[in-house]
Amino acid sequence: MYFEINRNYFIDEISKCNRIVDYKSVSPALTGIFIEVDSDKISLVSTNQTLSIKTNIFADTNDLKIKETGSFLIRGKNFIEILRRMDDEVISMNKVETNLITLSGEKSEFMLNVMDEQDFPTISFKEIGSMIEVETSDIKKSLNQTIISVDEYNQKIVLQGINFQIDSSILYITGTDGKRVSRKKIELGEVYNDRFVANVPFKSVSEIMKLLSDKGKTKILVSDNFVTFTINNSIIQSTVLEGNFPDVNGVFPKDFNSTIYVENKKFLKLISRADIPSEENSSTVVNFILSGETICIKSNIQQIGSFEEEFKEFELKGLEEQNIFFNSKYLLDALRSFETKTIEINFLDSKAPIVVVSSEDPSLSQIILPMFSS
Amino acid sequence: MYFEINRNYFIDEISKCNRIVDYKSVSPALTGIFIEVDSDKISLVSTNQTLSIKTNIFADTNDLKIKETGSFLIRGKNFIEILRRMDDEVISMNKVETNLITLSGEKSEFMLNVMDEQDFPTISFKEIGSMIEVETSDIKKSLNQTIISVDEYNQKIVLQGINFQIDSSILYITGTDGKRVSRKKIELGEVYNDRFVANVPFKSVSEIMKLLSDKGKTKILVSDNFVTFTINNSIIQSTVLEGNFPDVNGVFPKDFNSTIYVENKKFLKLISRADIPSEENSSTVVNFILSGETICIKSNIQQIGSFEEEFKEFELKGLEEQNIFFNSKYLLDALRSFETKTIEINFLDSKAPIVVVSSEDPSLSQIILPMFSS
Repeated sequence: MYFEINRNYFIDEISKCNRIVDYKSVSPALTGIFIEVDSDKISLVSTNQTLSIKTNIFADTNDLKIKETGSFLIRGKNFIEILRRMDDEVISMNKVETNLITLSGEKSEFMLNVMDEQDFPTISFKEIGSMIEVETSDIKKSLNQTIISVDEYNQKIVLQGINFQIDSSILYITGTDGKRVSRKKIELGEVYNDRFVANVPFKSVSEIMKLLSDKGKTKILVSDNFVTFTINNSIIQSTVLEGNFPDVNGVFPKDFNSTIYVENKKFLKLISRADIPSEENSSTVVNFILSGETICIKSNIQQIGSFEEEFKEFELKGLEEQNIFFNSKYLLDALRSFETKTIEINFLDSKAPIVVVSSEDPSLSQIILPMFSS
Repeated sequence: MYFEINRNYFIDEISKCNRIVDYKSVSPALTGIFIEVDSDKISLVSTNQTLSIKTNIFADTNDLKIKETGSFLIRGKNFIEILRRMDDEVISMNKVETNLITLSGEKSEFMLNVMDEQDFPTISFKEIGSMIEVETSDIKKSLNQTIISVDEYNQKIVLQGINFQIDSSILYITGTDGKRVSRKKIELGEVYNDRFVANVPFKSVSEIMKLLSDKGKTKILVSDNFVTFTINNSIIQSTVLEGNFPDVNGVFPKDFNSTIYVENKKFLKLISRADIPSEENSSTVVNFILSGETICIKSNIQQIGSFEEEFKEFELKGLEEQNIFFNSKYLLDALRSFETKTIEINFLDSKAPIVVVSSEDPSLSQIILPMFSS
């Protein structure tokens, strides 16, 4: 095995693979990155069993010159750090013995021990199933906006991830922990008749979010036990959570008694004040009292103290009286998920969920169940 | 007690006090900041027993208006966070009951529980002793350059800190762990005859460094068991370490056989490559071989691999052959402490300490003992 490659590009691609590696894995081989040098490309593969990634670098791109095929398995962490400390634009790698490779720049040379590649599992990346293509930036934003409602340790396994589901020409991305729901709609532009449902684990979602760029398209393929994301030269494949994701349509109230229209930033700052900081970092119960032209926000944490503020900078449609209690964290998460200037909060009564939306971005809804307080 | 103050300035001053607080202290009162409101100023005091700080804010500066004197003791952490979430430029504080204060802005109001101030210790900040005055930026830089050689867990108590000592008109600031010495000289401009010696604990030094700004002067006062730094409106007082600090002059070789002159950045990058990263984050033994016009740097870490590089970009005075072994971390720390473009490394032989200096900044010397390797 012998190849030359652009050092910085090589670092970027190894870093993608290294990010998902579980260094606490009981199987040492799984702490490595498998690098396979073919005649026309090199492939880098890593896995943490839930999530696997394969990234390809093609010959004659990024200074890649392949002189001899072969493969090796190496721990990413130190390897990246060694590459970072080098100065050269292009480096070369050469297998000199079964478990020994050289990494050379113009003047410096490292002899590096590699791991036994026989122990690395063969990972098959799926190519058959229902497939859609969406803007990468849309997927990235949607995952950020819906993951807030996911509890990765939820007792119901299927709620430990984000649900992807197609209904006709719309992709719904939904997260819920039973006390709130985050839902995003993406218009696909064409009608899909294939069944397309996948529950992607929280940890996979958070890794996938980091790997998504802000441009280009992402292909999503759903097969029996896997969901596979193809982004440029990389394929990321995750196992899926078993079970039936609840039909959240039922929790959306249809009619409301009051709607308030408010500048998101101002309301967010108000609620962040009501979210009194405490040692335990627990969330605060916030009392929202609408009374004509005034919203009064009150909260209280036993050991620290209490808060009260009157707020008048809003517009109102409907009933002028509401008195409702929330978990401050849920409301803050919901408000932060909107990138819009204004938001609308819809109320039915003190027992019904509230729905936060924005006319500037109708694709996102955040639903929060109220708390029952004295 | 009742006063008004500029919110942002108040946050800055509370933060200074909060930084040294030990929240793990067994005495709850010590986790608080004591705020005393006099007729002409308010004082904020905190302590972690080794280090204490007092900062004064004078009436009619920073929007401070004192309407009623008094005092309270409050946990800094949450208090700062509450103040940060407020919007107001000026806030007011009012004691309404023994253990209850209000914190008010224009529209919002917090009722905050405070701690029992009777339990907070009385701290006497020293005013009598030997005193010098130095540029704050000089002290800050010097502490950064000498703390690198201090091991806060050194078996010899007196070595767990930095030594301040005056000899005639020069202030020497020295750190050593027995294997290396960092020494800085500051010209005071006048001769001092008073005894001025203090060993300041590592933890105090690292906190003091954060409190030092880049302008103005710092007064340093040495009394029997304390060293006191006065910087603008703040007084920081530390206990000192007992014992006699070793006379490090003895370890400085006087004559050298070889001196190399090198660009610091280039040499630093070379040694950082030789410092092969490993799981244990241990330092590497680096072999430095000078042979005429070439320096060969070699290193080796059992599990990871080995490194070798030839380096020619240096000038040499004296003997053309040296072969010596170092701890990579010590050499890297020493090189990083110089802000100069070039450095000089002085060698006697493989058993004598090397001395790193720079003609661009003669105030700093870094001495490193070699390792004995095969």
